[in-house]
Amino acid sequence: MSEQFSNAFNFKEWSEERLAQVEQALKQGIDAQAPAGLGNAMRYSVLDGGKRLRPLLVLAAAQAVGVDLEAATVSDQPSALAAIHAACAVELIHAYSLVHDDMPCMDNDVLRRGKPTVHVKYGEAQALLAGDALQALAFEFLTPQDASTEVSVQAAQVGLLARAAGYEGMCGGQAIDLASVGLPLNEAQLRQMHLLKTGALLRCSVQLGAVSAGKPNTQVFEALSNFAQALGLAFQVVDDVLDVTADSATLGKTAGKDAASDKPTYVSLLGLTEAQKFAEKLYAESLAALDASGLSANATAALRALASQVVQRKN
Amino acid sequence: MSEQFSNAFNFKEWSEERLAQVEQALKQGIDAQAPAGLGNAMRYSVLDGGKRLRPLLVLAAAQAVGVDLEAATVSDQPSALAAIHAACAVELIHAYSLVHDDMPCMDNDVLRRGKPTVHVKYGEAQALLAGDALQALAFEFLTPQDASTEVSVQAAQVGLLARAAGYEGMCGGQAIDLASVGLPLNEAQLRQMHLLKTGALLRCSVQLGAVSAGKPNTQVFEALSNFAQALGLAFQVVDDVLDVTADSATLGKTAGKDAASDKPTYVSLLGLTEAQKFAEKLYAESLAALDASGLSANATAALRALASQVVQRKN
Repeated sequence: MSEQFSNAFNFKEWSEERLAQVEQALKQGIDAQAPAGLGNAMRYSVLDGGKRLRPLLVLAAAQAVGVDLEAATVSDQPSALAAIHAACAVELIHAYSLVHDDMPCMDNDVLRRGKPTVHVKYGEAQALLAGDALQALAFEFLTPQDASTEVSVQAAQVGLLARAAGYEGMCGGQAIDLASVGLPLNEAQLRQMHLLKTGALLRCSVQLGAVSAGKPNTQVFEALSNFAQALGLAFQVVDDVLDVTADSATLGKTAGKDAASDKPTYVSLLGLTEAQKFAEKLYAESLAALDASGLSANATAALRALASQVVQRKN
Repeated sequence: MSEQFSNAFNFKEWSEERLAQVEQALKQGIDAQAPAGLGNAMRYSVLDGGKRLRPLLVLAAAQAVGVDLEAATVSDQPSALAAIHAACAVELIHAYSLVHDDMPCMDNDVLRRGKPTVHVKYGEAQALLAGDALQALAFEFLTPQDASTEVSVQAAQVGLLARAAGYEGMCGGQAIDLASVGLPLNEAQLRQMHLLKTGALLRCSVQLGAVSAGKPNTQVFEALSNFAQALGLAFQVVDDVLDVTADSATLGKTAGKDAASDKPTYVSLLGLTEAQKFAEKLYAESLAALDASGLSANATAALRALASQVVQRKN
C-alpha cells in the first residue's frame, strides 16, 4: 500500500473482523439443546452463508455514532454488545424471510446460496417451524438475559425491528409483491413495494446500529435513515439488474426468475441501461445523505464502503 | 345472589371487562394501512375468535401482583397498559401458531373455531405471511412508541415472550411433536413435548402479567410460574380428553384428529379415566402453587377462576 493511502479505511480487514464477531454470536445463539431437526434446520439457514450485508450495516452505523467494536474490549461495552446482538437479530430476520419465501406456496425455489433450500433439505414442516423460530430468536438476541446491554436500547431496538419486519415493513412488502404478479405496476408502486419488502430491513439495520449507544441526535438518525433508504432501493435495483445479467452459478440462486414469473422489476419497467443509471443515482443519494449527517468521513468510512459494495456487487 | 356470596369474585363480569380491553387494543393494533390481503388475513386470524385464555392469564396475573386494570384509569397507568399490551402480544403469538399449524405442510386442517382456516380462506402464501406478520406484531405491542410503558418492563416482556415462542419453547415443542408422530412416547417424553408446545406460552402469559409492574419478588414470580406450568399441562390433558369425548361442532375444530393421525396423547398413554384424574391432579397442583405465592385469595381470585375454567371447559 502506498504511503498516501496508509490512513485509508481497510474495508476487507474491517468486515472480516466484524463478521467473525457476528458468526461467533450467531453460533452461540442456537444452542445444542434445540430439538435436533429444528436446530439443524435453523443452523443450516443462518450459519456460513450469505453476504451478511445487514449485520455489516448495523455495525458500520454503530461505528459511525462512535461505538468501539474492537474485539479485545467488546465484551465490556454495552453499546458494542447491543450492536453485535442487533447485527445477529437482523440477519436472523433476513434468514427466516428467505426460508419462508423459498417455500412451495411462495416462490417455490430449490436453490439458495448454491445449496438446496431449507424445505428441500429438511421438509416443509421443519422449514416453516425453523423460520418461525428464527424470528423469535432475533428478539431473543435483542434482549439478553444477563444485563449486558441497556434496557432502553433493548426496547428501542425491538421496537424498530418488529416494525421493520412486520406488516408495515417486510411482510407488508411481500404481500404487495404477491398481489402484484402479472400486474403493470408503475415506478411509484414498484418503489413502494421494495421500500417495504427489502428496504425496511436494510433501513432498520442502520437504525439499529445508530441506537446501540442510546438515541443519537435527530440530524444523525435522520441522515443515516435516509442513507439506508436510498441504499436499500439501490440494492433492489441492482438485484433486478443481476437477475437478467448474471447466471445462476454466480448468483447462487435461480437467475432469470423474475422475468420468467412475470414479476415487475426495474429492468422490465425502465430497461437495463436506465436501471443501471438509476442504481448509480441512488448510490449518489445515499452518499449525499451521509454528508448531511454531520459525521466525519472517518466515522462513516465503513458505511461508504458498504454502499459501494452494494452497487458494484456481482451476485 | 345471596348475601353470603356478595363479596365473591364475579368472573363473568371480570373477564368481559378485560376481554373488551384486549379486543379494543388488538383492533387498533392492525391499522387500515396494512396491505388489504395481508391485513384481512391477520384480522381474520385474531379478531372475534377463541377463548382468549392466554390474554386473561396475563391480566389475572397482573392483577395478582397489584396492577389496577379498571377501564376508567387504565390509560394513565404504565403497568396496566403493559399488561394489556402483553395480553395482546401473547394472543398474537398464539394466533400465528394456529395459522401456521393448520397449513397443509403441518396439520393440514380446514376448520378452526368453526370457520375455514386461514389458508383455506386466503391461500397458503397469505397464511404464511399473516402468521409471520402476527409474530412481529406481538413484539410491536410490547414496545409501544409513545413512552406509555416502562422500557425495563418492555425489555423484560420481550425477553420472556421471545424465549417462550422460539426454539426453547413453542417452536421446540412443535418440532418434537413433528418428530414423534407414530412413535411410542413415554409419559416423561409426552410431558416434555407439551411443556414446550403449549405450556411455554401459557406459563409465559402468567409471567408477562407478573412483570408488568416491574419484577416482582422471587417467591411470587416462582409461585405464579409453577401455577402456570401445572395449569398448562392440565390444559393439554383436557385437550386430549376432549379430542375423544367431544364432537367437532362443540370443539369448533376436527375432533378425533389425534387418534386418527396416530399422535401420542394422554388418553392413548393413560386411558380416558386416568387422563381425567391426571387433569384434576394438575389442577390441584396449580392451586397449591398459588397458595405458596403468599398472595391473598382476593388477589388470586381471577387466576383461580381461570384454572377452574381450563379444567371444566367443554371445548
